[in-house]
Order: sequence, then structure tokens, then C-alpha cells
Amino acid sequence: MSPTNMEQHISALRARLEQALDRWIPAETTHPARLHEAMRYSALGGGKRVRPVLVYGAGQALGVAPERLDGPACAVELIHVYSLIHDDLPAMDNDDLRRGKPTCHKAFDEAMAILAGDAMQALAFQILSMDPDMLDDPARRLRMMETLARAAGSRGMAGGQAIDLGSVGKQLDIAQLEDMHVHKTGALIRASVLLGALSAPEVDKAHLENLDRFAKCVGLAFQIRDDILDVEGDTATLGKTQGADQALNKPTYPALIGLEESRQAARELVDQALGALEGFGAEADLLRWIARYIVERIH
Amino acid sequence: MSPTNMEQHISALRARLEQALDRWIPAETTHPARLHEAMRYSALGGGKRVRPVLVYGAGQALGVAPERLDGPACAVELIHVYSLIHDDLPAMDNDDLRRGKPTCHKAFDEAMAILAGDAMQALAFQILSMDPDMLDDPARRLRMMETLARAAGSRGMAGGQAIDLGSVGKQLDIAQLEDMHVHKTGALIRASVLLGALSAPEVDKAHLENLDRFAKCVGLAFQIRDDILDVEGDTATLGKTQGADQALNKPTYPALIGLEESRQAARELVDQALGALEGFGAEADLLRWIARYIVERIH
Repeated sequence: MSPTNMEQHISALRARLEQALDRWIPAETTHPARLHEAMRYSALGGGKRVRPVLVYGAGQALGVAPERLDGPACAVELIHVYSLIHDDLPAMDNDDLRRGKPTCHKAFDEAMAILAGDAMQALAFQILSMDPDMLDDPARRLRMMETLARAAGSRGMAGGQAIDLGSVGKQLDIAQLEDMHVHKTGALIRASVLLGALSAPEVDKAHLENLDRFAKCVGLAFQIRDDILDVEGDTATLGKTQGADQALNKPTYPALIGLEESRQAARELVDQALGALEGFGAEADLLRWIARYIVERIH
Repeated sequence: MSPTNMEQHISALRARLEQALDRWIPAETTHPARLHEAMRYSALGGGKRVRPVLVYGAGQALGVAPERLDGPACAVELIHVYSLIHDDLPAMDNDDLRRGKPTCHKAFDEAMAILAGDAMQALAFQILSMDPDMLDDPARRLRMMETLARAAGSRGMAGGQAIDLGSVGKQLDIAQLEDMHVHKTGALIRASVLLGALSAPEVDKAHLENLDRFAKCVGLAFQIRDDILDVEGDTATLGKTQGADQALNKPTYPALIGLEESRQAARELVDQALGALEGFGAEADLLRWIARYIVERIH
């Protein structure tokens, strides 16, 4: 597929994710209206949708139709969006801007932001438990739910955020920084790829391991790129406050190993990610595209 | 079973719930330690455990062994405890005392309290997805997860909290007050009874409907009793701040229909709840005991 065609393909996937989210999140008129308004405000109409695209990409690599992947794609995105809402709260990162618009607690209030996040997490699991378009294999779906629950929980994403908050103003070494990212962003990125792969009726163990290796490399590369962008991006392009990590005195890759070395590390990880896909043909081109996008993206 | 024997039976169930929670929540030494410390601080060593006892009670009414019910009991209690942690936050009810000790954000900090709650919700679904002692029927377990997710989400408990926050300082009528409670506490109490019942290999539809009717009545009676206790209890017995609802100018049953009428309404609901159990024999005595306990309890 040519780069232009791939971009059109990804735009189409983002559009179908948007439609699926729109179907799952109750309407703004549904009681309690203000809560549903807050959920829709934060979940719809924006975002890079990296995790859903990874779900579609991993599924596509194993020949899974997009309809089967809409549910898992919504679930991982809802977990991601809820984590952004909670991370942005004054008690956490205290951010006013997200995806180019006021954060949820700024547009609504703190209480509504906490509840919108809480309700989104529940909705993510509700979707996996009942979506009629997903793979009709209850045991497999339980495994998908376990994968997502572990990735979201205290030894995954929520744990990563706790490690992050505990590390503000501290001198971390590279192993500790990596440990934070493995939890904070890596766990959900791995879960995204796994949920896509587990949507195939039959999954070869070697394929699953290679996709997981791909996901690990991509997850870390994504975070390094995020750190680089925090240094060199500008607020308008990022859609969130530039230099926020530095201002909070958070440890970052550029601060720890230097800017050029960080770029190099991200490139090497992407090469490793692409290496993990060697056993796949053109059906894994979407995953390859995402891996490259991650080190080249400007926001 | 004599009242003394029933109290011993319930003490034993609370103890096994405590042990099950202790097994599921990672140790305080598990990385990230501070987060696991906060989770254990809030989830272990206290609480009336009304929802888990309802799980055990509904299961027992259908002949289900306690081992099968530990997982669902932990899951509903984790959802309940996470909601307490988030409700107590300064942006919500701003409470300093819970179960006779400082609230999670007071003992730790706000960020850790938000994350501990978030991680507990994930753990609840993780348990239902993987507990090896639960009913070995993946389709049924998906149904249990759907039940819990709906009860916890925007049209259940989280929605109820949003309705509650939106009603502070407003004049509600009795229908609006009931609507709030049906969401805020009723949904999870119903889910507790349903999860217990769904743990039976075969569930008769009529039995399920009767148990659900029982749960609806008990849920509302529980909330009315809570409102009464907020008026007449004292802080030491309650383990939370007495008069907190009044101080926040929250609508309550006593404020709306009077104290004696509220007591009468609670008693009538319990009678209806007991009526729903007429088709059951002595195996439903635990549920009957809980219904009576709810209107008689002093905290």
C-alpha cells in the first residue's frame, strides 16, 4: 500500500472508531446528562487513536475483519482517555489543555471529571463483555478482559502513574525511567496489540509472541518520542502544554541520556519492532506504518 | 439458624472475604508499593461488607458453595470501596473519616487515592475474568461481568454519584431522590445479589426475578436507613462524619418525608423484600437476616 493509501486507510479506521465510540457512549440527553456530556466531550472528536489503530493493525495482521475489532478498539481507547482525564486533574499533573481543548475538569468540574473517568473504565469492560460483533468465543473474551484489566491496574497503567508521581523531582536512572514507562504507557500498548491478535479465531503462539515483542518495542519508542516532543514541540502542535514534564521536573529520556541519543534509541526500538514482524507479509503493513509513525510524529 | 449462629455465620463470611481480598490485592511490598499500600489500607480490615454478604446470601439461597462466591464477593466490594475512596475526595464529598479511620486521601494523598480507586476497579474485573474457583462457564462469567460493569457505570453507581452531586442544595421530590438512590447504591446492591445467583450452574428465571425484586427493596431500604442514621447516629458509631449529608445540604428521606415516615418506609420495603423470598426455604435465611439487619443497624 502506498503511503497515501495507508494514510487514507488509517483515517477510515479512526472514523470507524469514532462511530463505534459514539454508539457505545450514551447520548448527551441520556440521564444523567451532564455525566454523559463529559464522557463524550473527552472521548469523541480528537486524539491520535494510536491504541485503537494498534488493535486494528494487530487484527489485520492475522486476517481479522474490522467489525470484530471495533469493540476491543473502543475498550482500549476508553481506558486511555479515562487515564488522561484523571492524570490531568489538579491533584495529578494539573493540566489545562488536552487534545487542543480545555481538559475535562476545566470544561466541567473536578468531580465530573473523576466520575467521567470512572464510568469510562466500567464502559470499557462492559463493551468487552457484551459486544455482539466480537469473536463469539466466551473463553477467549475472558482472556481479553483479563489482559485489559491487568494492563489498566496497579501493576500496569495505574501503577505506572503512581510510579510517575513518586518520581517527580527525583533523580532516576535509565532502568527506573524505563520501569515507569513500561507500566504507564507500555502495558496498555501491549494490551492493544494483544486484544487485536486475540480477536483471531486461531492464534499461533509464535505469532502472538512476535506481536508482543513488536508491542513492547513500539511502546517504549512511543514514550521516548513523547519525551522528545515535550522538549522540542510547541503547545499548538502538541495540543497539550509544551514543556509540562520539564516544568514538573519530571525525569525524561532527553534529560537523562541527551536529545540525540534519545532519537537514536527510539529509531533502534522501531527497527527492533519491525524485526519482530519479519514472519508477516503485507497484512502487517499497518503495524509497520504505526511503528514508523511513532518516531516521526510531531504531536 | 438461631440469631447467634447467624451472626457467627456472617462473621465467618466476612473473615473469608477479608482473606480473599488479602490474596487478590498485591502485597504492600509489591512494586509500586505505595499504591498497593493505599489499596490495602482502604479495602482491608473494616466495613460492614453488606454487598459481599449479599453475594454469599444469594448464592447460598441457590445452593452455591462459598468458594465459588469469593471472587464475585471481592469484585463487588472492590467496586464499592473504590467508589467510597473517590466520593470522599475534596472535589466530591470532602470527607476526612471513613470506617473509623482517616480517608484514603488523608492517609496518603489525593493523587494516590484517585489511583487506588482506579486500580481497584480494574482489579474487580480482573478477578471475574480469571478467578479459578468461580463457576467454570465462560459465557455465564461474561454475563456476570456485564452485570457488574453496567452497575458500576454511568447508568449505575457512577451516574448516581453524578446525580447526587448535581442535587446538592436543590429541592428534590421523592421520585428524584429515589432515582438518585436507585443509581447510587441500588445498582451495585442488585448486582451483588445477581452475581451470587448467577454463580449457580442452573438458575431458574423465576428465582432470579424474585431475588432481583428482593435486591431492589433491600437497596432502597438500605439507603433510607443510611439517611436516618445520618440524622440520628453519632460520628463514633457511624465511623464517618455524622450529619455530613445535612451539612452538605443534601436531600434525604427524613428531610423530605419526615423521620418517622422514613422509618416506616424502610420497614415496609423490608417486608416486601422478605415477601420476594417466599418461594425459598431455610437456604435463604441469610438473605432474610440481611434484610432485617439493614433496618435495624446502628451504623
